[in-house]
Amino acid sequence: MKEIVIGFLGCGNVGGGVWRLLEDMREEIAHRFDGLSLRVKRVLVRDVNKTRSCDVPAEVLTDRPEDVLDDSEISIVAEFMGGEQPATDYLLRALRSGKTVVTANKVALALNWHLLQAAAEKSGAGLYYEASVCGAVPILQTLTEALPANRIDLLMGIINGTTNYILTRMSDEGSEYADVLADAQRLGLAEPNPAADVEGMDAAYKLTIMSSLAFHGRVTYDRVYREGITGVTATDIACGSAMGYTLKLLAIAKRGGEDGREIEVRVHPTFLPKNHPLARVEGSFNAVYLRGHACGEITLQGRGAGDYPTASAVVGDILRAATAEKHRHPTFRNTAEPDPSLHFTDDWRSRYFIRCSAVDAPGVLARVADCFASEQVSIATMRQEGAAALGRVQLIFITHEAGEKAVRRAVSRLDSAICSLESLIRVEE
Amino acid sequence: MKEIVIGFLGCGNVGGGVWRLLEDMREEIAHRFDGLSLRVKRVLVRDVNKTRSCDVPAEVLTDRPEDVLDDSEISIVAEFMGGEQPATDYLLRALRSGKTVVTANKVALALNWHLLQAAAEKSGAGLYYEASVCGAVPILQTLTEALPANRIDLLMGIINGTTNYILTRMSDEGSEYADVLADAQRLGLAEPNPAADVEGMDAAYKLTIMSSLAFHGRVTYDRVYREGITGVTATDIACGSAMGYTLKLLAIAKRGGEDGREIEVRVHPTFLPKNHPLARVEGSFNAVYLRGHACGEITLQGRGAGDYPTASAVVGDILRAATAEKHRHPTFRNTAEPDPSLHFTDDWRSRYFIRCSAVDAPGVLARVADCFASEQVSIATMRQEGAAALGRVQLIFITHEAGEKAVRRAVSRLDSAICSLESLIRVEE
Repeated sequence: MKEIVIGFLGCGNVGGGVWRLLEDMREEIAHRFDGLSLRVKRVLVRDVNKTRSCDVPAEVLTDRPEDVLDDSEISIVAEFMGGEQPATDYLLRALRSGKTVVTANKVALALNWHLLQAAAEKSGAGLYYEASVCGAVPILQTLTEALPANRIDLLMGIINGTTNYILTRMSDEGSEYADVLADAQRLGLAEPNPAADVEGMDAAYKLTIMSSLAFHGRVTYDRVYREGITGVTATDIACGSAMGYTLKLLAIAKRGGEDGREIEVRVHPTFLPKNHPLARVEGSFNAVYLRGHACGEITLQGRGAGDYPTASAVVGDILRAATAEKHRHPTFRNTAEPDPSLHFTDDWRSRYFIRCSAVDAPGVLARVADCFASEQVSIATMRQEGAAALGRVQLIFITHEAGEKAVRRAVSRLDSAICSLESLIRVEE
Repeated sequence: MKEIVIGFLGCGNVGGGVWRLLEDMREEIAHRFDGLSLRVKRVLVRDVNKTRSCDVPAEVLTDRPEDVLDDSEISIVAEFMGGEQPATDYLLRALRSGKTVVTANKVALALNWHLLQAAAEKSGAGLYYEASVCGAVPILQTLTEALPANRIDLLMGIINGTTNYILTRMSDEGSEYADVLADAQRLGLAEPNPAADVEGMDAAYKLTIMSSLAFHGRVTYDRVYREGITGVTATDIACGSAMGYTLKLLAIAKRGGEDGREIEVRVHPTFLPKNHPLARVEGSFNAVYLRGHACGEITLQGRGAGDYPTASAVVGDILRAATAEKHRHPTFRNTAEPDPSLHFTDDWRSRYFIRCSAVDAPGVLARVADCFASEQVSIATMRQEGAAALGRVQLIFITHEAGEKAVRRAVSRLDSAICSLESLIRVEE
């Protein structure tokens, strides 16, 4: 019978879930892992007197980080504080003293992965972070353990549950963003300060981690193009739907170009054809669609958040860490800078949904169309809608595949006196 | 730089794919695994003179098993022969001499897992078999490595590509089974002898493996209830479709009952509501939907067969084996008999689609309905169709959830003089 002693940093929703899952599964874990016993010795919290969703004994709780970080009996530190600091400092202290880290903290990992991994490699400690991306969905393990014999050229995911919940309700109900957000906040499905979710930061952190593992090179957070859902309107969703598309906040990582080393990483609202596997991922579910040269297309779908789904991934990592003879790390150049073998581009190719409000007068459509033509942006579908009585019409274009920069140049050519750009949304197939 | 020497048993479609993928990824593998080199030293084939899809040098090919099994330099044996024998004997010889086995052979594993694992445990060798179930879809690794902190109570999968291809085409085209099968054989998508696929054995072997890992106890092949698709008609598919259902060959493993130890494992044609995640899995794709008490619902989808998708899983396993410090095995009682802690039932509960051909006369429907009522089988939906001119009508019932045995007793009560049973198909939600 082997006992592993664990310390928690943080005990909120996820930490509480991990505590309860460890209690709940004590017998099965012993049975499934040759008598293994996992004992949580100390739990760092901000306020030891606060009421919690799990019954951590008072003597286990502490508000002094050193009670976890300097306890030589603790060999695994599981972190659920979130945020870059002080989490990163605590994790570095743990790793430097040889403690293995299991973390659900996408921000600390995305921003300071190089420091954390270097510290782990130096001391021989392990660094596990499946729970940092997509909760219970085993996407990181799939990339590293199941698909190492693949060249991955595409990752495309719905990896933020809050925005998917909001967009699903906007689509189903025809509601406006602000109304659904307010309701989601009331239901506890969006944070009081929703910026990290709705402005795409959360998805961008996760994409940083996923794409680094998929491309075997460090993709840094600042290289991810990011556009949130705050500008999405019920009109855009309705127009797209009428043309056969569903709007999703997608995180996309593509590898292409002539030598296969050109990389694009981007998070933005995206129209998908309604029959696309990701178009049907509704509510707070997460899903990742990937393509490898050997495996072909793989889609993983499941719960991306929540106490128990995240705890499922954390405890899975704790068990991998507790039973590992030797901890492994990605072998790519994990430095503060993006991997020099990856050539990032912000001039990707996509299709575009472009909605304009135009004066209803002869010649206007021709002049608008000319803006696209002059940049070699070819139109696949066009619709004109709206009441002529108001003197203005809606023009909706869906382009063939075109370069991002050419499309931006084209829309910047629109003469605002006759036609104003209402929205520009990328379309993926 | 570490070199691992590998021997192949078999070099057909999958073996050829593995050879080509290893060649293709030589540089990346070295890069991704600290200079690791994988060298295939010998390849056992039946006929060394046959032309192959991969350029194995003549001096590597051999038709003598001992050239692989008795070569002390070879530390990993990768097997692609398929079938129970002689594969099992060869794998046992390899394992007993301490060689790690990587296999895509679901039959040998499902039938002789206990012997293979015992031999591996005794010699300290590894036994890897991700490729034996669902090709590139990492379902086994997900169960063992990602979800060990879960109680899995449901696995439901489309795990045979040939039958899914046939059923998809029957649904799309309204064609009969025999016609689509013949066409699939012509296209090389079904075997000349299709029994293993269309009679559900292939799916049952895979379910044996998956469910043993999910339930942490040996589920043996002979406990799997099995019904193939050979009796499925275009009429059933059309009737089901009109009522909102899609027909799939599902492999189902459920854990339930009062103490959570009652197990049902079954492979049979199944109607699913058209909006069920598995209903949309088309053509030769595989997908597995599972439910765990912590992770919630997870769906994995991808290519379940084909040279490169299967090779993706095989080479993934070779890399895991080559870099493992110590090989791990499931810790459940892996014996020739089913695990005594699992209580198998063949009286599961389901909903049922029942199609009858009845005499068109007063009182017939009442008498038919009475057969169900007398067994407490409650009808959810009923349709009557068909030309009264012919003197017979189609009666289609969909029941509420009912016990398998009660439904069978109910249909056995039908008076064949007035009503004959045409088909009985289970319906899952």
